[in-house]
Amino acid sequence: MRFKLDKSSPLPAYRQIAGRLRELIAAGVLVEGERLPPSRALAKSLGVNRITVQSAYELLDRDGLVEAQVGRGTYVRATPAIASATMEVTAEKPASSQFWASQFVEHFDSHWSGPRLRAPEGTVYLDYALPPADLFLVDQFRRALNSALKEHGAEALQMGASDGFPPLREYIAMHMTRMGISCRPDEVLITNGCQQGLDLVRRVLVGHDDSVVVENPTYPGAINVFSGSRLRRFTVPMTESGPDLHALESIISQNKVKLIYTIPNFHNPTGATMSMEKRERLIEIAGRQRVPIVEDGTYVELSYEDHALPSLKAMDEDGIVLYLSSFSKVNFPGIRVGWIAGPRAAIEQLEAAKRTSDIHTDLLAQTGLYEFCRRGLLDQHLKRVRRVYMERRDAMIEALKRHLPPSVSWITPAGGLALWVTAPDGVDSENLLRAAVSRGVAFSCGKGFYSGPPDPRTFRLCFAAAEPEDITRGVMRLARALEETMAESRETEPERALSGRPMV
Amino acid sequence: MRFKLDKSSPLPAYRQIAGRLRELIAAGVLVEGERLPPSRALAKSLGVNRITVQSAYELLDRDGLVEAQVGRGTYVRATPAIASATMEVTAEKPASSQFWASQFVEHFDSHWSGPRLRAPEGTVYLDYALPPADLFLVDQFRRALNSALKEHGAEALQMGASDGFPPLREYIAMHMTRMGISCRPDEVLITNGCQQGLDLVRRVLVGHDDSVVVENPTYPGAINVFSGSRLRRFTVPMTESGPDLHALESIISQNKVKLIYTIPNFHNPTGATMSMEKRERLIEIAGRQRVPIVEDGTYVELSYEDHALPSLKAMDEDGIVLYLSSFSKVNFPGIRVGWIAGPRAAIEQLEAAKRTSDIHTDLLAQTGLYEFCRRGLLDQHLKRVRRVYMERRDAMIEALKRHLPPSVSWITPAGGLALWVTAPDGVDSENLLRAAVSRGVAFSCGKGFYSGPPDPRTFRLCFAAAEPEDITRGVMRLARALEETMAESRETEPERALSGRPMV
Repeated sequence: MRFKLDKSSPLPAYRQIAGRLRELIAAGVLVEGERLPPSRALAKSLGVNRITVQSAYELLDRDGLVEAQVGRGTYVRATPAIASATMEVTAEKPASSQFWASQFVEHFDSHWSGPRLRAPEGTVYLDYALPPADLFLVDQFRRALNSALKEHGAEALQMGASDGFPPLREYIAMHMTRMGISCRPDEVLITNGCQQGLDLVRRVLVGHDDSVVVENPTYPGAINVFSGSRLRRFTVPMTESGPDLHALESIISQNKVKLIYTIPNFHNPTGATMSMEKRERLIEIAGRQRVPIVEDGTYVELSYEDHALPSLKAMDEDGIVLYLSSFSKVNFPGIRVGWIAGPRAAIEQLEAAKRTSDIHTDLLAQTGLYEFCRRGLLDQHLKRVRRVYMERRDAMIEALKRHLPPSVSWITPAGGLALWVTAPDGVDSENLLRAAVSRGVAFSCGKGFYSGPPDPRTFRLCFAAAEPEDITRGVMRLARALEETMAESRETEPERALSGRPMV
Repeated sequence: MRFKLDKSSPLPAYRQIAGRLRELIAAGVLVEGERLPPSRALAKSLGVNRITVQSAYELLDRDGLVEAQVGRGTYVRATPAIASATMEVTAEKPASSQFWASQFVEHFDSHWSGPRLRAPEGTVYLDYALPPADLFLVDQFRRALNSALKEHGAEALQMGASDGFPPLREYIAMHMTRMGISCRPDEVLITNGCQQGLDLVRRVLVGHDDSVVVENPTYPGAINVFSGSRLRRFTVPMTESGPDLHALESIISQNKVKLIYTIPNFHNPTGATMSMEKRERLIEIAGRQRVPIVEDGTYVELSYEDHALPSLKAMDEDGIVLYLSSFSKVNFPGIRVGWIAGPRAAIEQLEAAKRTSDIHTDLLAQTGLYEFCRRGLLDQHLKRVRRVYMERRDAMIEALKRHLPPSVSWITPAGGLALWVTAPDGVDSENLLRAAVSRGVAFSCGKGFYSGPPDPRTFRLCFAAAEPEDITRGVMRLARALEETMAESRETEPERALSGRPMV
């Protein structure tokens, strides 16, 4: 018996083997009473571990398809009909779905999902704002991790402190201080990425009936966090120089607001950078009205200009700013390590909330990441990706200028991973996406980013994850899709389906 | 200049170097205008990377203590007084603490903290219920992790799915199925340990004004989760055969209860195992009253008997049980990976809550752990620790029988990490702990585990983390401390202070 395993499949090998054998029984190729190859022999022929084959046999045994006879081998017991039947998914208990649906107290948003579309092969993906995996320093990280495990040994695997691995907190405090943000290690709380930072801030500061201010559009993960049936979310329109502070001041002077969430640098999704004047005014307004500012610094390190504006936290004389950031957008998104920096009084409560949430952030990730940073590898990686992303941004802007009609506008970001585009009046970016995907280019519709009234013309293009030639090709396809969409009648309302993957 | 770095210090090397130089300036050893050694030379003499020394110099530069002159080297600028002054910790902004204290909406409990006491050297620690680090298969895990990183490469470091790494979900589903719990991979949600599982369940199922039922005593992390100013927590007394189901039935028939949280096997802290009869009745009562059961299976794998009772989830014909478990108590607590298994309808909502909480569980931990399990190393580890822990449990029971008066009672656990003791009437275990710690043995006071009325006589002894001879020594010290406490007048009320470490 010979068949090939799919190395790229997310299905583990034993499951693939069991599935294949099940198919062979269902197809009548393997018949009742027939002996399966000895696990050692099959393992050898497939190039896998013997345990893998044994696990496959166990799986089939459990389903009654084969029978292991001690010392004699494993035999097929089932008929094709039984094998087919076990390929079906076990049916959900009928009462269960209704029962559970009536139990939920809080509906968690699916704000991160866009329409589910089938993309042709060769599609240029400009949708998710993720750093490209081919630039990851995987081997260097692996070596750093090995060294951390050798140095710290079992301690890296034993329960740790809720506030984080002390050397990593030290490193972050120093890193922040270098950025001009005065910060002690005990003013840092390690979180599972910036998302958990936001979630903890919400849990500690925002009650069920409270109000918050967010930018519109903004990071969808923040919309998810600042959601709830009774929570009021005021939205402030974004402009190229940051949020509209007239609107913001008017809101917070007339309402009791618990916090202002803002992304001053390379705002997601618009790419806008808040002007110095607005930074000063925002700090002044929030200080006067005594409203905490939650500053999201996730993209700060991805600056393509030499001179950065100071962060709000660096300008915060009243101690009202909580600064959230993460290693995930600048380094490895799969390693969930971020942090909150703020005054001790706030960090202490946030730490208690963290302890209740999940005790502490994975210590293996923290020790490995610390060693990676300590070796200067994060700085090295940043130096490299800043150059690469900037080239890609420039390639995208060049292509937009060349191929799109003048009625299309965008904001040129001074950093970050993506760029925000506004199509001409009458274009709905969801329709445009359908046309674009069928032509082999994908982007993120604007809708998912709006915490308030959406502008349907808008969409986001991630430039960081594609090579310049792919970007050019993608933008050319986009240009044709836009022509088509503009020419088409706009009668058909798009159906909507939700995909399972988070939009970031 | 020569000094030694402390390899065991949590302080990173650059920080140690900067601190030492700061001291030398403060002490007048290094004087104004003096040139520091070139970073390369100092790095060599200390056996560190040059970047480490440069970082130390940068830190001192930022504080104004030294000055880097391009091409000439780094010079001392400061007087001893300035160097001393910068050794002080930056003071908190005065307004800040009050400001933040007035912002918090929810008080997060410190239910996990006991009194903070100074333990003499040589103390036998029987307090935290953690697996002992010296039994961890660190090297095998490191190799599994290397192999996972080599196999999955950058994909192990890229953003993953909110519900978890598919092969690990497959593994868990198979593992559960082997335990007699029918479970598909899409009925599994990966969480950051069991603690996050509880937290997500609370967020999805329990509203602000809702009621829950928990055992008394119970896991302190569950008390933290099921807390809130308006949340009502009904408590059911624990007995040696499990919770008092008369009390439970009376509560849920008279009140609208959102869930029942229970630890049927090797209950934390009592070590009790729920009898088969109670399992059947609990399932029947909850099914009739349509109340979800949250079953905590954290300790299930640590069974010291061959025949295990079926889990509630295995007996659950109505689909009302959510099963929570974790790798952390059976393997590595620092690696925060656990899971919830339940009907799809519940898992979908829990996954949405997970996405809002922190997007997904660390993927590095998931891939490494999967590879560790796939290689059969978890099974191997379990086989070993079951034998070791059982010996230690037996040693502890032997010592308790031999050295403690007959007025002391305990429950003999059939699995798990710890044992629950009740001292004679009139003994407060907090007073006993003071006497015990001064004699060199530490345990966990019962108080932290009570979600309802506490029995002050009770305390928990962890047998898993100490060698049999240390256990015997510890119990002998405990016996003397008990004699002393019983003899002493009980007039003095103990002061209470909270330690920062979570009690588990």
